[in-house]
Amino acid sequence: MTAATGTGRRDRVPPHPDMRDIGLQQVLEALVDPVRRRIVAELYAAREDLSCGTIDLPVSKSTATHHFHVLREAGLIRQHYAGTSRMNALRREEFEERFPGLLRAVVTGHDEG
Amino acid sequence: MTAATGTGRRDRVPPHPDMRDIGLQQVLEALVDPVRRRIVAELYAAREDLSCGTIDLPVSKSTATHHFHVLREAGLIRQHYAGTSRMNALRREEFEERFPGLLRAVVTGHDEG
Repeated sequence: MTAATGTGRRDRVPPHPDMRDIGLQQVLEALVDPVRRRIVAELYAAREDLSCGTIDLPVSKSTATHHFHVLREAGLIRQHYAGTSRMNALRREEFEERFPGLLRAVVTGHDEG
Repeated sequence: MTAATGTGRRDRVPPHPDMRDIGLQQVLEALVDPVRRRIVAELYAAREDLSCGTIDLPVSKSTATHHFHVLREAGLIRQHYAGTSRMNALRREEFEERFPGLLRAVVTGHDEG
């Protein structure tokens, strides 16, 4: 067993874009995928941080990791580590300020599987 | 010169889907394209019917026709003929009822070319 150092853990925290650098095109490209919308809808409903494994998705683990990556790059989620679990939270307030009404509209219209 | 009959003109009016048959997936696929968002944004701002030729788009006429087709199929616009001009209108109220807040959010966030 290899113990992770404190520094190592900090390095594992992925970068997050500044919300001012996010464009609507990138956001819509992220939200057009139904699996990514499901992640967003679950985080929206949960109102708390969820680990990647908590969200039941119909895709492989590596594909799921890719989807979380796209959402992070589009400014929709913030990720951090809690022990060995990668946790996810919606950037709800920041996103609402940048794209008023969009998150709610997409989550409300989320009626597909 | 061939005169179009009244019946012929009516036949040229394309079919419009029932808003209840429209899913969020189809709508987002329509709105993810920046040219289609530009059409929607111009119709939203104009608040009146616009002919296809009125809306300045950076694509060929046949590509533009395709984009209008996709928007019509996704329930975003209604088309009709006025003489030989194909006119376009946003299905603003119907769409708002089916997907509350989405149109406004996308048009407000329309900050790209």
